[in-house]
Order: sequence, then C-alpha cells, then structure tokens
Amino acid sequence: MPSAKSTKPSSAKPASAKQGEPISRGAGARQRVLRAALEVLDEHGLPGFTMEAVARRANAGKATLYRHWDSAGALLIDAMDATFQPFPVPDTGQVETDLAHLLTAFVRLLEETPFPRLLAAFVDAAERDPALAALHADLTERRREPVLVVLDRARERGQLPDHLDAELVTDLLTSPFFYRRFVAHRPIPDGMVDDVIAHVLGTRISAGRRKSS
Amino acid sequence: MPSAKSTKPSSAKPASAKQGEPISRGAGARQRVLRAALEVLDEHGLPGFTMEAVARRANAGKATLYRHWDSAGALLIDAMDATFQPFPVPDTGQVETDLAHLLTAFVRLLEETPFPRLLAAFVDAAERDPALAALHADLTERRREPVLVVLDRARERGQLPDHLDAELVTDLLTSPFFYRRFVAHRPIPDGMVDDVIAHVLGTRISAGRRKSS
Repeated sequence: MPSAKSTKPSSAKPASAKQGEPISRGAGARQRVLRAALEVLDEHGLPGFTMEAVARRANAGKATLYRHWDSAGALLIDAMDATFQPFPVPDTGQVETDLAHLLTAFVRLLEETPFPRLLAAFVDAAERDPALAALHADLTERRREPVLVVLDRARERGQLPDHLDAELVTDLLTSPFFYRRFVAHRPIPDGMVDDVIAHVLGTRISAGRRKSS
Repeated sequence: MPSAKSTKPSSAKPASAKQGEPISRGAGARQRVLRAALEVLDEHGLPGFTMEAVARRANAGKATLYRHWDSAGALLIDAMDATFQPFPVPDTGQVETDLAHLLTAFVRLLEETPFPRLLAAFVDAAERDPALAALHADLTERRREPVLVVLDRARERGQLPDHLDAELVTDLLTSPFFYRRFVAHRPIPDGMVDDVIAHVLGTRISAGRRKSS
C-alpha cells in the first residue's frame, strides 16, 4: 500500500499526469492499478493476468507494481476485494429485514459488477493453487462477517434461539445465490432473497418468538 | 456415440491393440477417449483442452474424434458427465434417509473424484462462453432430478406439505456443498449432510407430520 499521499485529490490532477504517473502518488494511483487489474482479468482471464499486463494497462512500471504487491496473486486479491464494497451492517431490529438488505446487495453484486467473473476465475485457479485458495478463503470469511453479526444481534434480542448454528445458517442463506449464478446458470428471481430467508429462518424464528412471548 | 460395437470386451484386447486402436471399436474405446479427456483437462486446464491434445493422449486420430464429437466443448461435456455416475434414486420411505443417500454420494464426488476440478474449469469457462453455460445448465438440471423425485415422493406420502417449493428446497440442500468446496474452501464436516437436511426440512417435515397425524 502506498504510504506517501498526494496533497491533491486525484480528480484535480492535470490530464498529462495520466501518462506514466508514479503509483506512489496515493490512493488515486492505487485505484488506477486496481481498475487496470480488473480490466486485464476481464479481458484475458486468469492466464493473461500478469504484473506486466497490468503495468502496461495502468501506464505504470512493472517494478513499481512489485514495490506494492509481492505477486500477481496479491494484486489479484486486492483488485477482487475492491469490487466488493464492504456492506454496512444493517441494524433495523428485524433479522429478516437486516438479512434482506445484505442479500439484496449481494445479488446486485452478482448481477451488476465484474465480481462474478473474478470469482469464476478464482474458483478455477484455486483448484490448482493452494495459496490462491487460502487467500480466497480469507476474503470469503470477511464477507460472511456482516451476516454473522446480524444473526448474533438477533440471538441477543431473542429472535433466534441461542443454539442456532450461525455458520450453517450463513451457508444456507448465501450459497443458493452462488449456486444459481455459477453452477445452475439460472436467473435469480425477484422474490428469491425473501424466500430463502423465510425458508432458512422459518422454524428458528417461530421457536425464538415462542420462547420470548 | 460409436454405433459399431466390438464383440470382445475391452479388457480382453491384446496389449498391442492399445496403440492406435480405432475409436469405433465400441464402448471401451469411447471410455478411453473420455478418460484421456479428463486427464488432459486435469493436467492443462481448460486452455489446454483441445481435440488434438485429447487425440494424442488417447492414441486416436483427431479426425476420428471429430466423427464422434462436434467440438471440444461437446467432448468436454461427455467427459464431465462420465465422472458423475448417475445416482440411483433411493426409496427407503423416509425422505431424510433418501436425501442423506443422495447428498453423501455427492459429497464423495466432491472429495474423491476429478469432478470438482472439471466443475471449477466449467464455472470459469461458462462466464466467457454462453454455449458452455447452457450445456452446464443442462447437466445441472439432470443432476437435480433425483432430489426432486425424492421430494415428490415424500409429498405424495404426506411427509412434506403440498405447497413445498421443491426447486428452492433443492437449491438449499445442494448449494452449501458447492459453496464450501469452491467458494469458502472449507472442509465439509462429517455431520454436515444430516445438519443441512434437518435444517432445510425442519419446519416442513413437522408441518407434514402434523397434517398426517
């Protein structure tokens, strides 16, 4: 990560700075490399994803890229992370509503961003490269966090039973969307988020409500 | 598919027949090409999966392969289908037991066969090639069939309610295993099959039992 920050916001840079602008200029330059990385991945897939190709696309030196990322794999992970804006954790007091917020944002990510292509490339690459698999496992861990927080708060409010297996419930809530998109190649219908939540929390919520009433 | 069948079983062939044996000799030869296809895919991934590479590995002529498969994509699908032995549809009279049979066989497939590597290659390739995505969607459709049959029989027996959304339930039952293996890169613990079934069918089964008692 670049430590020296430009005092100018990147939008105020003169047009000529786009050519050969040193990456150490700050967050704007970092974003530029990450954007270039996504473009290279999108066009050429993982086999064409090299430091050289990204440097060329970003108008940056290869050596400069290496100063910020150890390997093409590390750069890839950062680029992938950048497509996945961290979801704010909703806290409406209703577990179904909170989960609907999170899952709707996730479906939008699957349908409207370069994220699914990146993920698909990762799924394949991780089969051949345990280091990439480990990095991807870490990313997935981070992304499960908001769902786990929502489930945890619901337990504290008595909306879900204490013995709920939150990890399993998180699998059940999120995996059908991955599966539809990447395995079954089926559209994700409008009501699916609500249906999945209702089905997965069905018993547990009634159990919780019985307990608290 | 070859129409002329060899009168000899493939295991009875002399060793010399392995070299340059015509593919039209029957089912044994077809299996040999499919096996070669899996080996090529496993070693070189999808970018290295060409008719030429498979022909070389199978000791068959490229033109001969083209007589049986229109394209490398068609051969790939057949090879993938061959790794996935069609599960016999269990019929024990208990929906949980039937589903446990199916899902346990599926987990074994994910853990002990070349299937996951093939699937991973497909996930990536399908992002770039709608024809492959459509073929993969068809394969997935076929594989959902046994689960749908089991759910249907359970409805007929009154173990599941009539209004059950069998397609959604099938998503919920199968997708967590794909997700663990390909996205989260987490091991599939021993009890997971039973936990998923208990959680997904929980309400529905008690509802069905209430109705029928």
